[in-house]
Amino acid sequence: MGSLTSRPSAEVISALTLELQKRFGNRCVTSQAVREQHGHTTTWIANQPPDAVVFPDDVEEIREIVKLCGERRVPIIPFGTGSSLEGHLNAPYGGVSVDVSNMKKIIAVHPEDLDCVVEPGVTRKELNDYLRSYGLFFPIDPGADASIGGMVATRASGTNAVRYGTMKDNVLALEAVLPNGEVVTTARRAKKTSAGYDLTRLMVGSEGTLGVVTRITLKLYGLPEAISAGVCPFPDIKAAADATIMAIQTGLPVARIELLDEVQVRACNAYSKLSLPEKPVLFLEFHGTEAGVAEQAQRFAEIAEELGGGPFEWATRPEDRSKLWEARHNAYWAVMSLRPGVKPFATDVCVPISRLADCIAETKADVDARGLIAPIVGHVGDGNFHLSVLADPNVPEELANVKALLSGLIERAHRMEGTCTGEHGVGQGKMKYLEPELGTAALDTMRLIKKAIDPDNIMNPGKIFTLQP
Amino acid sequence: MGSLTSRPSAEVISALTLELQKRFGNRCVTSQAVREQHGHTTTWIANQPPDAVVFPDDVEEIREIVKLCGERRVPIIPFGTGSSLEGHLNAPYGGVSVDVSNMKKIIAVHPEDLDCVVEPGVTRKELNDYLRSYGLFFPIDPGADASIGGMVATRASGTNAVRYGTMKDNVLALEAVLPNGEVVTTARRAKKTSAGYDLTRLMVGSEGTLGVVTRITLKLYGLPEAISAGVCPFPDIKAAADATIMAIQTGLPVARIELLDEVQVRACNAYSKLSLPEKPVLFLEFHGTEAGVAEQAQRFAEIAEELGGGPFEWATRPEDRSKLWEARHNAYWAVMSLRPGVKPFATDVCVPISRLADCIAETKADVDARGLIAPIVGHVGDGNFHLSVLADPNVPEELANVKALLSGLIERAHRMEGTCTGEHGVGQGKMKYLEPELGTAALDTMRLIKKAIDPDNIMNPGKIFTLQP
Repeated sequence: MGSLTSRPSAEVISALTLELQKRFGNRCVTSQAVREQHGHTTTWIANQPPDAVVFPDDVEEIREIVKLCGERRVPIIPFGTGSSLEGHLNAPYGGVSVDVSNMKKIIAVHPEDLDCVVEPGVTRKELNDYLRSYGLFFPIDPGADASIGGMVATRASGTNAVRYGTMKDNVLALEAVLPNGEVVTTARRAKKTSAGYDLTRLMVGSEGTLGVVTRITLKLYGLPEAISAGVCPFPDIKAAADATIMAIQTGLPVARIELLDEVQVRACNAYSKLSLPEKPVLFLEFHGTEAGVAEQAQRFAEIAEELGGGPFEWATRPEDRSKLWEARHNAYWAVMSLRPGVKPFATDVCVPISRLADCIAETKADVDARGLIAPIVGHVGDGNFHLSVLADPNVPEELANVKALLSGLIERAHRMEGTCTGEHGVGQGKMKYLEPELGTAALDTMRLIKKAIDPDNIMNPGKIFTLQP
Repeated sequence: MGSLTSRPSAEVISALTLELQKRFGNRCVTSQAVREQHGHTTTWIANQPPDAVVFPDDVEEIREIVKLCGERRVPIIPFGTGSSLEGHLNAPYGGVSVDVSNMKKIIAVHPEDLDCVVEPGVTRKELNDYLRSYGLFFPIDPGADASIGGMVATRASGTNAVRYGTMKDNVLALEAVLPNGEVVTTARRAKKTSAGYDLTRLMVGSEGTLGVVTRITLKLYGLPEAISAGVCPFPDIKAAADATIMAIQTGLPVARIELLDEVQVRACNAYSKLSLPEKPVLFLEFHGTEAGVAEQAQRFAEIAEELGGGPFEWATRPEDRSKLWEARHNAYWAVMSLRPGVKPFATDVCVPISRLADCIAETKADVDARGLIAPIVGHVGDGNFHLSVLADPNVPEELANVKALLSGLIERAHRMEGTCTGEHGVGQGKMKYLEPELGTAALDTMRLIKKAIDPDNIMNPGKIFTLQP
């Protein structure tokens, strides 16, 4: 097999680095700070910096890097903006971080076809700024201003997924450099196809382990004629979850439906200067025509009332709406303010929506029993929620306590037919949970695919699964 | 490699057949008629019957069949209802057709989660009959009453795809027997996941070449509170296509938008006793609340009028609506009535919607120039259309003429950034078009995956691509 299981020798790395510097000049960086920043992610997992960081300008330069690394069996770690959460960007075997932040071309926008073609370094906010003049938008919103390439890699989703789906639903086609240096195109620009294996969706969520994505064709949507947003408190999590289930089940086309538990509400009130009732709340958003969103709002208000929730308060002015969603997006930072000086351990699970209330309730009970602080926010329309545990990783007992909480959370999600990650991905942090989740046959099939496409294991090794069972 | 490139010997087949008969009794059938019926599809491709047909009752029996065949390197062809169109079910190397029509259990319906778990032999109509009492439905509708397993295999879509997506968007998880006899589960029941490679979508559309699907978890939808349908004539195809584009672009959530050209309208009028104007028409359907569908209808009528179409006639009564869609579904049979005694050569392509009018116009010109009869129907909201060419395959000149027309159609679709198949799949009929469409790197990647998962090439060999470039 020749699988890579250890770090390349210092000689190999220094020869490769020299060659990369000769070729890329100051676009090949080896300073400690830049290397650490590229291994570093928004995570509690220890930093494992790459040996060098290269900033290519185009697909041909990526091919060169892949060939130079491939010949020497040196790992390649594709890098977008570094906002991933499970150690996806760490370099446990060293290697070269391929930072695509110079690749920000929006190659084409096709308004009639509701699609666009972009390079991987474009961030979602940059794309949406560009699209505004066309009256179009790209809905996937994981919170962070992630790069489109990174969002492909982790199969990102976020607050809009309940209505618009995840990256798997919104990538029409990809171009990628394979481990052998060949450039693959996974599909044409047609909106649907039955032509062969779905390589597009094999690449989406593969976390850089099968190739470096160099071009992405995305579905777009017309900016809604009308948007309305609002906040609705509930007596408890169960009532909020039940309201969500009822809204989804009756076909209410809600664009966003986000749960914040009372701990998260308290944090957001303090951090974002809001005055929400300190109870579980749902943040909602509806897209449609003026008449449509009014009808949807009315219907949701009725559902909420039926379940003891409310009053449902509408943010009709765009600035109030922005303030709400900014508070939601700043939830991560707000959490930190609850215990200054420590970083949150952020995790996510996803369960069938009928199990959501139970899963959250049991999790909150466990958090309390362990004496921890851990606000919950959730994309509840999908059964997906996040736990942000505040603890000091330098205190061994705290770390052990958090790890036990997180393992328990995933076991609970598995028991409820759920997944260890709805949207963050596996990276390094969740590798051990994949086999309990999917079984040996699934893991072995993934390994077979990885070995077939990347026989020398140069693409982001040490992520998702180990090559040996 | 040990790749299968020729038919197993008669001795191997007869020994295997004996063993299968011993094990499965009269659920292993070798009569000429049944074998031919299982190779036979709704296609012009010559019949290549399997050596035997087995009707397993459950996943364990499928494992036994796969092991018995695998040990002898005998091909396995999974069979649903036989409604595929591109020779997917033919047995060019002989082997065993695994007919799942005994596997019709609806294992679970989870109304709160809007999902269900079914065996592969359940047909879409059987499923929807069962779901009606829950107020739920499964939207994917390829016309034929296909099995869910077959719809997974070909990545089916159909009239509702513009609103509800295709099979890739509506399968949450699969269980399948792999070529090595292991049973793989591709995902949990959660609505979204970022846990590892997307094996679900790798299996969807793999046409039985990677395993036999034994269990499917599907997304469901609440039956719409209100449905309205209607017909709108247009002066020409371009106006109809432009109205479609405008409807999609303005975010009109149309559930179905189907084009019939004037030739198809004539056929449907005759066959289904309608009296539509003999012009290109759009059949439309809207799902939503009473107020919502009325608003949508009004908006579409305005769009149509702006483009010189109309009048837009509504079928408000359920029986009129049924009659319309029955006529649409019977389009294939109606076509035959245009030239009794010959079978239609049915094909489909899909292009970006902005190119749809051009693609159809050029195709119609080619049909006329060749003196052929070939009605067009299309799922135009997706840029997908079907051509049904009426010709006698026993007349060599006619056959050559049709083949040239179909090749030209696919070249045209490729030139317009489209695909050789939007929903029928590749099977045998479109194998040669896959490499021009996706390039060598994509085909080689598919081959690597196939060889890794099915090293002896026992799963539906001779479909989608050849193992050697």
